[in-house]
Amino acid sequence: MKPPVINFSTLQSAVEIAATLAFALSGLLAGARKQLDVVGLCVVAGLSAFGGGTLRDVLLDRRPFFWVEHADWLWALMALSFSAMLFMRRRHLALTERAIQWPDALGLGLFTANGTLVALDAGMPAIVAVLMGVITATFGGVLRDIVCNEIPAAFHDHRPYALCSFVGGWVVVAAVALGAPQWATISTAAATAVLLRGLALWRGYTLPAWRIAKR
Amino acid sequence: MKPPVINFSTLQSAVEIAATLAFALSGLLAGARKQLDVVGLCVVAGLSAFGGGTLRDVLLDRRPFFWVEHADWLWALMALSFSAMLFMRRRHLALTERAIQWPDALGLGLFTANGTLVALDAGMPAIVAVLMGVITATFGGVLRDIVCNEIPAAFHDHRPYALCSFVGGWVVVAAVALGAPQWATISTAAATAVLLRGLALWRGYTLPAWRIAKR
Amino acid sequence: MKPPVINFSTLQSAVEIAATLAFALSGLLAGARKQLDVVGLCVVAGLSAFGGGTLRDVLLDRRPFFWVEHADWLWALMALSFSAMLFMRRRHLALTERAIQWPDALGLGLFTANGTLVALDAGMPAIVAVLMGVITATFGGVLRDIVCNEIPAAFHDHRPYALCSFVGGWVVVAAVALGAPQWATISTAAATAVLLRGLALWRGYTLPAWRIAKR
Repeated sequence: MKPPVINFSTLQSAVEIAATLAFALSGLLAGARKQLDVVGLCVVAGLSAFGGGTLRDVLLDRRPFFWVEHADWLWALMALSFSAMLFMRRRHLALTERAIQWPDALGLGLFTANGTLVALDAGMPAIVAVLMGVITATFGGVLRDIVCNEIPAAFHDHRPYALCSFVGGWVVVAAVALGAPQWATISTAAATAVLLRGLALWRGYTLPAWRIAKR
Repeated sequence: MKPPVINFSTLQSAVEIAATLAFALSGLLAGARKQLDVVGLCVVAGLSAFGGGTLRDVLLDRRPFFWVEHADWLWALMALSFSAMLFMRRRHLALTERAIQWPDALGLGLFTANGTLVALDAGMPAIVAVLMGVITATFGGVLRDIVCNEIPAAFHDHRPYALCSFVGGWVVVAAVALGAPQWATISTAAATAVLLRGLALWRGYTLPAWRIAKR
Repeated sequence: MKPPVINFSTLQSAVEIAATLAFALSGLLAGARKQLDVVGLCVVAGLSAFGGGTLRDVLLDRRPFFWVEHADWLWALMALSFSAMLFMRRRHLALTERAIQWPDALGLGLFTANGTLVALDAGMPAIVAVLMGVITATFGGVLRDIVCNEIPAAFHDHRPYALCSFVGGWVVVAAVALGAPQWATISTAAATAVLLRGLALWRGYTLPAWRIAKR
């Protein structure tokens, strides 16, 4: 009898689950701040986790969606939203926000790599594929913010977020052009985006600002 | 010569027309409060009435949309918006809001039943089909509120609305699994959602709130 | 050797480029007012320029999108957003707003004509085709305003904008019904919408207002 092997795809699944949960939690935090009810919490959690990929699939005319193929996730998300409502208190908010920064960055990297690959597979030109990667990684949060009646943080907080995803997308394009195997493509691209995001968080980088903006 | 027979589908059509008008009126009320111009009024009325079903059809990749197949409705909607603008006064607002609560609840029930059935027909898993029913019934109002720059009431007013729709959707799933005829499925599911909504309105039920929310 | 001929389609291309740039600039102005970062600027510029046509294509289930077929435009848009950020100052804002009114009106006319034709080609009924033309011409701006967390100006500023597009769309329907050649259809319809918009700007026409609105 062989011991269980932790291979790349098991590792990838584990990271993806952590990343999706981080995205969902970011939705729950935003919903809590806006005092949404339990229905609203489920919706913003779901939009944050699956909105980006769903929008990409609508644009690429791809079916089935992730959450149709893996409908169990919808139950998990509802359970998460209920638990958050039952067990989370005000003092947990800032803590959670800090705790999800890293899995959120992981999600940014993985969703970018995955989204760009899917779009390349669908025959999109490089720049479109990269934008699809960025959409996959960031538009969950954008839709969350629109529903919460805020200007999307990805467009407004002057922190590199979509930009890290954009660079990661080009790494995918380059790796595919060089004929790299898929696991190498995904891990290099995701690592690039994650490290850039981590660097930006650690050093407090800001995006070049418009002088009009007076910030 | 036989007298006209009021059969189930005639009745259903009449109820559907009342429900769609109620949804459109809810859009007009929201638009009036935000002082939209006549173009905006037509858009929010149309979004409220057809937005949920259209979003469901985009997600299911189904065509034609209801308002493409029954394009006459678009004229009716524009006529309604113009008439509202010409004849409605401030003192009519609260009155209309109260008057549409019941047809709106009917719409919630019927759109849920219809949307869930359509999604089951398209081969969706049960939980996805129920969500499609909820989207059909509630996302018209959600899009209306997003356009009006408000947090969607369905996520924020702590009243059971989408939840009634969710329960109604499961009634559809159960009835289909039991092999019930379509008219029985639709009327049972719609009645469940309508009665729950009515009960919630009558007794002033609120959704379980997050303690963070301090309401 | 013949001199280069400026024929209808060259002229149309030139006008289309001007119109698309005007739409993108309207996005940049809105983004600047909301102090978006460079990522947000690119997104609102892109939404303003391509959002309407993309939404129409999603509704009509048409692929590829304009910006997938002509992916170079995406680079042009990013370059425009960067240049605006580098070279535009506060005093340029009002100037730009005034300068883009005419190319924006051109865009309104051309996008309407084009969008209505595309929808008629797809077999839509007349009223739906006209609405698709209006969506093509105006929903870029609507999505821009939603992302910027504003009530869409097209629904709220009481100026004829979508209405001019609506009239232009019916000109397309009439011209197609009369068997007019495509260049005549497009130029008549676009000219109608542009002139109406120009007239409305020049004379300061406002849309009939709801008395509730007290403006």
